[in-house]
Amino acid sequence: MEKILRINMSELTIKEEKVADKYKYLGGRGLTSSILLDEVNAGCYPLGEENKLIVAPGLLAGTTLSSSNRLSVGAKSPLTGGIKESNSGGTVAYKLARLGIKAVIFEGKSVQDIPLTIKIDKNGITFEKDPEIKGCNCYYSTEKLFEKYGSKVGIMVIGTAGERNLLTACINCTDTNGEPCRVLGRGGMGAVMGSKGIKAIIVDDKEIQNDMQKKPEIKELIKEFAKKLKGNVVTGEFFPKYGTARTLMILNSLGGLPTKNFSLGKYEKAENISGEKMAEIISSRGGKTTHNCMPGCVIRCSNTFVDKNGEKVVSSLEYETLCLMGSNLCIDNLDDIAILNKLCNDYGVDTMDVGVALGVLAEAETGIMEFGDACKAIELVKEIGKGTPIGRIIASGAGMCGKIYGVERVPVVKNQAMAAYDPRVIKGNGVTYATSPMGADHTYANTITLQTNHLDPKGKVEASKNLQIFTAVLDSLGFCIFTGRILSSEPGFLEKIVNTYTGWNVTFEELKEMGKSVVLKERKFNKKAGFTKIHDRVPDYFTREPLKPTNEIFDIKDEELDLMFN
Amino acid sequence: MEKILRINMSELTIKEEKVADKYKYLGGRGLTSSILLDEVNAGCYPLGEENKLIVAPGLLAGTTLSSSNRLSVGAKSPLTGGIKESNSGGTVAYKLARLGIKAVIFEGKSVQDIPLTIKIDKNGITFEKDPEIKGCNCYYSTEKLFEKYGSKVGIMVIGTAGERNLLTACINCTDTNGEPCRVLGRGGMGAVMGSKGIKAIIVDDKEIQNDMQKKPEIKELIKEFAKKLKGNVVTGEFFPKYGTARTLMILNSLGGLPTKNFSLGKYEKAENISGEKMAEIISSRGGKTTHNCMPGCVIRCSNTFVDKNGEKVVSSLEYETLCLMGSNLCIDNLDDIAILNKLCNDYGVDTMDVGVALGVLAEAETGIMEFGDACKAIELVKEIGKGTPIGRIIASGAGMCGKIYGVERVPVVKNQAMAAYDPRVIKGNGVTYATSPMGADHTYANTITLQTNHLDPKGKVEASKNLQIFTAVLDSLGFCIFTGRILSSEPGFLEKIVNTYTGWNVTFEELKEMGKSVVLKERKFNKKAGFTKIHDRVPDYFTREPLKPTNEIFDIKDEELDLMFN
Repeated sequence: MEKILRINMSELTIKEEKVADKYKYLGGRGLTSSILLDEVNAGCYPLGEENKLIVAPGLLAGTTLSSSNRLSVGAKSPLTGGIKESNSGGTVAYKLARLGIKAVIFEGKSVQDIPLTIKIDKNGITFEKDPEIKGCNCYYSTEKLFEKYGSKVGIMVIGTAGERNLLTACINCTDTNGEPCRVLGRGGMGAVMGSKGIKAIIVDDKEIQNDMQKKPEIKELIKEFAKKLKGNVVTGEFFPKYGTARTLMILNSLGGLPTKNFSLGKYEKAENISGEKMAEIISSRGGKTTHNCMPGCVIRCSNTFVDKNGEKVVSSLEYETLCLMGSNLCIDNLDDIAILNKLCNDYGVDTMDVGVALGVLAEAETGIMEFGDACKAIELVKEIGKGTPIGRIIASGAGMCGKIYGVERVPVVKNQAMAAYDPRVIKGNGVTYATSPMGADHTYANTITLQTNHLDPKGKVEASKNLQIFTAVLDSLGFCIFTGRILSSEPGFLEKIVNTYTGWNVTFEELKEMGKSVVLKERKFNKKAGFTKIHDRVPDYFTREPLKPTNEIFDIKDEELDLMFN
Repeated sequence: MEKILRINMSELTIKEEKVADKYKYLGGRGLTSSILLDEVNAGCYPLGEENKLIVAPGLLAGTTLSSSNRLSVGAKSPLTGGIKESNSGGTVAYKLARLGIKAVIFEGKSVQDIPLTIKIDKNGITFEKDPEIKGCNCYYSTEKLFEKYGSKVGIMVIGTAGERNLLTACINCTDTNGEPCRVLGRGGMGAVMGSKGIKAIIVDDKEIQNDMQKKPEIKELIKEFAKKLKGNVVTGEFFPKYGTARTLMILNSLGGLPTKNFSLGKYEKAENISGEKMAEIISSRGGKTTHNCMPGCVIRCSNTFVDKNGEKVVSSLEYETLCLMGSNLCIDNLDDIAILNKLCNDYGVDTMDVGVALGVLAEAETGIMEFGDACKAIELVKEIGKGTPIGRIIASGAGMCGKIYGVERVPVVKNQAMAAYDPRVIKGNGVTYATSPMGADHTYANTITLQTNHLDPKGKVEASKNLQIFTAVLDSLGFCIFTGRILSSEPGFLEKIVNTYTGWNVTFEELKEMGKSVVLKERKFNKKAGFTKIHDRVPDYFTREPLKPTNEIFDIKDEELDLMFN
């Protein structure tokens, strides 16, 4: 990938730049975070001219190597005030990479009367106006964009939440079926895109020759990796069968399943929203229990949830949503959760943030939301689409809900809602939540994947740290984190992939050095943005209030957290 | 004043403590800030059990010495997340001091079914239940409390905003007329009181002998100080005639009057909301242009604004409200502003914060609020009373409004709304806003009182610093800041007052050392709470966007700000 494109939205100018030496070995998150640190004033207003939105495919994107086409988007987060990278599957990274584009940097802020569509293809970049999708949500907008730009393009799009600059707004990317359901979900990247005056980004790789894909050694690698992934019980059996939702009963049995606004660790009706139940329902109704979101992915953890008539509701129902909009709200009906998910996808807001926000509102006991009331939850989520005050409050995230409704028990770190692992039980994830520069985001280092006693605080700082570094490697290469189980234990194979693709001669240790440097850059950005060690904490109540049924608290000492990278 | 009372709201216990040596020379803010630093975990949840609400009369309170009966209330602020002290006039400090109480420390959090009334008199403290005022606003509650506890008591009370823990909730104190209109306004002290489960604090000094007041040397001092204050053109002539509102035309002529959400420095209709106009209207309608809020005060800057029928609307209409709910919203009708003020007083929210919040909403251009639309403003403020989502958003302050409505131009520092002086023109106040540990609060060091070219950045850091120190002295002694003009220029007289009252032998320099130590303690608390130098900044746009008509920007360098106390 040979070029970086710089698009100034204030002046609608485009500059093609050669890749600087310092960025040569970076892709995906490694690149977005490095450029942010180098170019963006950490103190800037996240929705203003000074912030930049950086889109970068992973270093290895562009072939059908399984699970290697993740797309990274980075910016200063309006939700946390710190650095953010969010990555997703879908087809955009694959296509960008095939166009030879290493990164696209969006600067400034458009002064046009409507949000623009940015079209990227072999001829370069054009600014398009699509007035018919102004103020429209993601599904309708995507349909219109496919009609206009062809059904084969990759699309990044925001809904009304992004247009309104709401803090939990996402960017939705189309998957291999053309569904805008692979979501750059966390940290408000959709609000940043909206603030720049961008409604959609179209990536068209038509007529691009892909020499890489044809190389025999690559073909061989693709086969070898697919075999390894299929041979693993999780990536080869559980994920295709149940999707990420299989995690739900595991968390429930550990007692770490966020339930009733993180006040319980077990949900008595967990089975009703489990991966097993979901697969059963989807199968019995004629839906799809498995498909791939990225070209070539053999894990195929995605699904299409259908209603009683076999009509598609949403693709794809995943663990974090099932928990945070399910057990966390005491909602045990998959049909309800699917509707909530669909609405969030359509408006372009993060299901996780919205789920946690609704839990905080239920905790507030003002009558605005009640645990277990799915109708009320759906009604409230619809307010996001209308842009009413309560809709805006919810889509501004759980932290904001807590402040506006006077709630102490708000499961956020750096204003980012926690993922679906209670930090008192999955203690490694508690460490990740606390110390991640991106707030309580499990994807920064999801220790649930480790073979360990999750309840034992011992060694969890080290475990999270190592995983933070390795995850930064995966995110930079463009690998889905689900490949971590294979690639972390087969350093030689990871080296082989990278060196075969790039022609370099890097070692596993050097890759980890790169990963560590990415984490350190992100921490440096946050330091400049005003974060201190006091921000590297889970909310106090997790350290005081035992979680039933295990009666665990988050008992990792502040001093230990502070030593992590010092 | 010989004792400190410690009230544990969780257990409803009371402890009387001797004053520790380290607190002996402190009163008012000096005491609240010192106790906060010593006792409160800076990282705690401000509305939780760990925070403390500390009430302390100024060191010299308890006699009729003019302008010396200010009441300080301190806590970790839920609005800023940093240390906060707010002080007001009224009769409470006078009565507390007469009871020999140096401070009352409220700890924990009540678990009672209704918010309690705390009654303090010569027999000690009792916990009372007044269910008839639960969920009621300040005027009605005060009326009921006077009925029950007698018309001579001093009252601190919160409205529904405080009960709801809203971030800009105030504590209202009764003045010499029994009006709950002397407001501990900024930083959400009312939310902290509400979170502790306290609805009202009653201070009854019945049957207390006041030996101090009878001493000939004190009598003499009282006379001498009154003469000096009356002899000064501002405290003796302008304030009694026009109240603080006289400042409005001065700011307008300087081009620093916040207008249209701080986007202009002059308001074309300023005369309609000026102090002169207000005095004229009040006089012509038979209202009161002047009275004292504290026992013995000769400045008498307070007024009672009446409607066309001569009926009282609100006491007292002041400069900050006239500007922030007037020119800042392009509202030029005093009757409208008086209603807005009355509503805010009743619900118990800060008029300044609410004014700035409405300005931000108008800037958002979502149609929710329009500049110049007084009816809409009144309607929106009424939503605060109802506790609706939009009401809660507004009462959560301008910073929150900006985040929820995606507005960049939000005039806050540390999430505290700016006072009625544009920092681009009154540059010394810009320095105060930026560097004050309490956010953009002019009372931390209001440089408008200085004889200086306010537009010239030179020397303003030093000016603000010196005034921060001196203001800490006044706030600790219990002096109204309006006495600063006299006391700062007559060090010998200030020494005489303090030494005559206390029997000590302190010098002006020693008092300033004390003031400095208070400021440093507040900065230390904030450092522990996670604040860094990047938080000591006015919002970026003030440094970029020139303010008409002077075309000034805030041009004091970050490096200069950072040197202030280093």
